[in-house]
Amino acid sequence: MNSGTPKQLIRIEQRNPAYWRVIFDNPPFNIFGPESMPQLNLVVNALETDSKLKVVVFESAVPDFFLTHYDFVPPLEATTSMPPGPTGMPPLPDMLARIGRAPVVSIAMIQGRATGVGSELALASDMRFASREKALLSQWEVGAALVPGGGPMYRLSRLIGRGRALEVLTSGNDIGGELAERYGYVNRAFPDAELDAFVDTLALRISTFDKEALAAIKHQVNAATLPRDADVAPEWDAFIASVGRPQAQEKIAQLMQMGLQKNHDVEARLGYYTGTLSH
Amino acid sequence: MNSGTPKQLIRIEQRNPAYWRVIFDNPPFNIFGPESMPQLNLVVNALETDSKLKVVVFESAVPDFFLTHYDFVPPLEATTSMPPGPTGMPPLPDMLARIGRAPVVSIAMIQGRATGVGSELALASDMRFASREKALLSQWEVGAALVPGGGPMYRLSRLIGRGRALEVLTSGNDIGGELAERYGYVNRAFPDAELDAFVDTLALRISTFDKEALAAIKHQVNAATLPRDADVAPEWDAFIASVGRPQAQEKIAQLMQMGLQKNHDVEARLGYYTGTLSH
Amino acid sequence: MNSGTPKQLIRIEQRNPAYWRVIFDNPPFNIFGPESMPQLNLVVNALETDSKLKVVVFESAVPDFFLTHYDFVPPLEATTSMPPGPTGMPPLPDMLARIGRAPVVSIAMIQGRATGVGSELALASDMRFASREKALLSQWEVGAALVPGGGPMYRLSRLIGRGRALEVLTSGNDIGGELAERYGYVNRAFPDAELDAFVDTLALRISTFDKEALAAIKHQVNAATLPRDADVAPEWDAFIASVGRPQAQEKIAQLMQMGLQKNHDVEARLGYYTGTLSH
Repeated sequence: MNSGTPKQLIRIEQRNPAYWRVIFDNPPFNIFGPESMPQLNLVVNALETDSKLKVVVFESAVPDFFLTHYDFVPPLEATTSMPPGPTGMPPLPDMLARIGRAPVVSIAMIQGRATGVGSELALASDMRFASREKALLSQWEVGAALVPGGGPMYRLSRLIGRGRALEVLTSGNDIGGELAERYGYVNRAFPDAELDAFVDTLALRISTFDKEALAAIKHQVNAATLPRDADVAPEWDAFIASVGRPQAQEKIAQLMQMGLQKNHDVEARLGYYTGTLSH
Repeated sequence: MNSGTPKQLIRIEQRNPAYWRVIFDNPPFNIFGPESMPQLNLVVNALETDSKLKVVVFESAVPDFFLTHYDFVPPLEATTSMPPGPTGMPPLPDMLARIGRAPVVSIAMIQGRATGVGSELALASDMRFASREKALLSQWEVGAALVPGGGPMYRLSRLIGRGRALEVLTSGNDIGGELAERYGYVNRAFPDAELDAFVDTLALRISTFDKEALAAIKHQVNAATLPRDADVAPEWDAFIASVGRPQAQEKIAQLMQMGLQKNHDVEARLGYYTGTLSH
Repeated sequence: MNSGTPKQLIRIEQRNPAYWRVIFDNPPFNIFGPESMPQLNLVVNALETDSKLKVVVFESAVPDFFLTHYDFVPPLEATTSMPPGPTGMPPLPDMLARIGRAPVVSIAMIQGRATGVGSELALASDMRFASREKALLSQWEVGAALVPGGGPMYRLSRLIGRGRALEVLTSGNDIGGELAERYGYVNRAFPDAELDAFVDTLALRISTFDKEALAAIKHQVNAATLPRDADVAPEWDAFIASVGRPQAQEKIAQLMQMGLQKNHDVEARLGYYTGTLSH
């Protein structure tokens, strides 16, 4: 994949000039890695600069997976050698921060597993709606002796409160759609068969409203709620530091042995498997 | 209405010296406008200075409407020419901030539509209880290309979290009592037949407690939760700026054409009608 | 009790070196007083320094009472004469702040009344799980003309929002397990028969994870959510000031007359009795 045209992992489907769907399409698990970075960056650039765009829905074309954890196959240097983004932060925290500040409404529509980067992208989006039957949200990292790096300690805590955030983050458990709604991790959970229609109606409605008013409203909400870059940057540093520790290398090796990134069941029931590792 | 005794739009009913009901009574829609300002100010003054008052319940005498949007009939200058209040902010954000700081517990009892100013007054009150069948809360402004001016970007975000607040504020949708409770927009929703008795029991109980202890408790909660004036003042400026923009003037003209401030159905289903405007 | 071996009010049961149960055992009501302070301090020291400990569950050995209000029998000086803790704050706010900062996950398992200090310790813990049938949480203090002193104005407001926190704090009402979950006062409520097994499974899972990763995750959540000492210290000062006021002395005397600290029904239905005091 290092030469020639890179595989398209993220597609844009324009429902109308004001309303786009952004579709994660990296089967079989929608793993997010160094290759995904520049493709997501094109989307974030559009959120910041497209003069007609008002609302964007993040969704997945891969059954069972919205977007999941970071890719452990490429060497860590493939990530740490990337130049920082416009905020001065490394690419992933940079793009997540810019989604929050962009003058466009962003909606995560979660119909499968949103783990690690998937949960972090959902948390960086303006709203989240989940399938009652199929959504699984988690910050699984602690189960591999890792610290999450994409801002969930700050964003999840501010969204659902310290107590529930600490449960999600220190247990690494999978959270289904119904509990995610009860905790406020998502705005609402819907029966899977109704989710897309609800999100589509909402996004279409927003796309008829005035872009300047939408941006001004979001600007004020941002002032009340967004973390500063200095609040989330240490989470990325803590993630990178944790990847290098022997405890994490040992746990990741165990998971790889079990079939991480290869075996559907390991990816689909990641919360279960992290609880079975020797320690 | 500019000469003679102004119509009484807000009445006070003293259940006992420590417990007052403040009743919005401006039929047919409980629209809030320049005339309402000095009358609400008398109430806010009492919250700040009455030595016996401990708890106040805001309610409506108008069926289907708790308190709704700002009056679009008087010229904007009738509002912008008003002198600032004691905080230095214009009258509406001034009074809402002072309700939060007053040493008296304030409870909004919502049995009809609380839209725009109605939602903002409810959010500025210390607690909110809603009718499960009859309450409709909304910040409808975006549907008319307006930015809400009374602090909801800050207050609602802090109350229900960034994700749900952005949904309410960028969709302009009507939120019923049950969903309002699920989102934390109100403390709790009750069957309409039980709401008044619940609120009355609660307010009577509080009215037997020590005023000094109540005030000291609220003072500490305020330190942890209230926005500074500098946090909410920009929302009013953004509202005034938005009213002057052609996009808003065009949408308001369309709504007036449909019967805004005249037709019961337009006021009662405002969220529906803003979704039908041409854009 | 002032000479000889002090009664053991707080016991530690090690499920494994990484997972301890801390058991409040001061029958018949699990009242918390000056004698409890040094015993809780030993626990807090262990949370801060034990190299193997990862997760601790606070529970009660006393039926119907998790941990309740401060002891009104010893003279106030027995409390105010205690030297400050390592934070520079008096012992109770000091220990509660240190539980929040400790590199160990703390879980309150609430199967009876958690009132006053009991609620405050639960709020200072990282998570809270409650019995649906048996848990009763409250900050009852306002009913005795007191101001709570252990940080709930800050911690509860940040956890459940200004509106619901003001209801809990200015009503002094008892909050059952189901409502406590709905308000976010606890993470979740479970049928009493299932609570211990849920908490045990969760704590065991956490105890298999890497201590360094757990501590780093909690450190970042702390940065996003913990009050500064300067935020909570004024609550203790307000409590001490309120105890000395004649209104509080009069209400406490009435409650003592009714059987506070002696009569099971007064302790078990404290929210009811505070509503019956003459004022």
